[in-house]
Amino acid sequence: MLYAQVHLTLPAWVHDAVDTSRAYPTDADKVALAIVLSKHNIEANTGGPFGAAVFGPDDRIIAIGVNRVVPMACSVAHAEMMAYMLAQGRTQRLRLNRDAEDNVIGPITLATSSQPCCQCYGATVWAGIDRLLIGARAEDVESLTEFDEGPLPADWVGALNERGIEVVRDLERDAARAVLRAYGELGGQRY
Amino acid sequence: MLYAQVHLTLPAWVHDAVDTSRAYPTDADKVALAIVLSKHNIEANTGGPFGAAVFGPDDRIIAIGVNRVVPMACSVAHAEMMAYMLAQGRTQRLRLNRDAEDNVIGPITLATSSQPCCQCYGATVWAGIDRLLIGARAEDVESLTEFDEGPLPADWVGALNERGIEVVRDLERDAARAVLRAYGELGGQRY
Repeated sequence: MLYAQVHLTLPAWVHDAVDTSRAYPTDADKVALAIVLSKHNIEANTGGPFGAAVFGPDDRIIAIGVNRVVPMACSVAHAEMMAYMLAQGRTQRLRLNRDAEDNVIGPITLATSSQPCCQCYGATVWAGIDRLLIGARAEDVESLTEFDEGPLPADWVGALNERGIEVVRDLERDAARAVLRAYGELGGQRY
Repeated sequence: MLYAQVHLTLPAWVHDAVDTSRAYPTDADKVALAIVLSKHNIEANTGGPFGAAVFGPDDRIIAIGVNRVVPMACSVAHAEMMAYMLAQGRTQRLRLNRDAEDNVIGPITLATSSQPCCQCYGATVWAGIDRLLIGARAEDVESLTEFDEGPLPADWVGALNERGIEVVRDLERDAARAVLRAYGELGGQRY
């Protein structure tokens, strides 16, 4: 018998913790939400110290994600991957910035509490986003926790830029680092 | 309201098309199954021309995957990603080659009809496999279809080797190329 169904969920607390009625107009606002999600996730013990959110052209939330690797027993369930899959499921757009007739919808933005790892980096190439906003750097993740970012192209920013994806780094970096530090001090799992 | 559930499925034909009662002892046997899956997928019009399968130390199937990007409206739903998520869901092991007490289980093998793209490459780093078996090369995919493999580390094989993952290429390459060519001649979608 083949196992044929993938089912992944966000933790129940997201429905109370996230204000979907408001806009998140600035880059810093968007990354600050991702960082708040990362903090909630470790406080609720519902996954690793990573959060992400996809925003539409109106600066409102399309979907959010948090790391669910351990609770879901799924190495794919990183925050950015959850956010992409949920945003695509909600909109039924396999490229978030293209509609069914291939018309442009945008800009679509992903905000993430930490630099995407090798898996989330590759997913970012296909997800259909125009802007990638990042809090903590890879070296913050690797120095403050036992997580590893994995192998990336040498010029990973340039390769995204060539595909029309703008990258902005170091947004609310100190706040993002504080959550990573808190997690690292807990001796959290590596996943 | 937040969208909080990801649900991805394999096509119904997999239950009839895959013989789970037998072993797939050689590397060529394993990749041949992945290629048969890729062919079924385009003939049934249930996704792109890519198939994959995860095998346990007994050379039997743990899970299979086919490309489901268009039917699921999900850019994450590549064949290798589906196979990893389904294998992890079935075994409840977030690293396929480690049990809950971190004991080694292996070798675990992924066989894929074509070289993993940038997303599936990154996922391979975290999925917990020991061996990666590949049919068609990236240049076959890019010359025979309109698919794009995305940015990879310059020494992508070496980076996997450093993490203990053996890579074997060009297994049943002609058969894999034949399916890609058939798909390319259909003028299939790029996804």
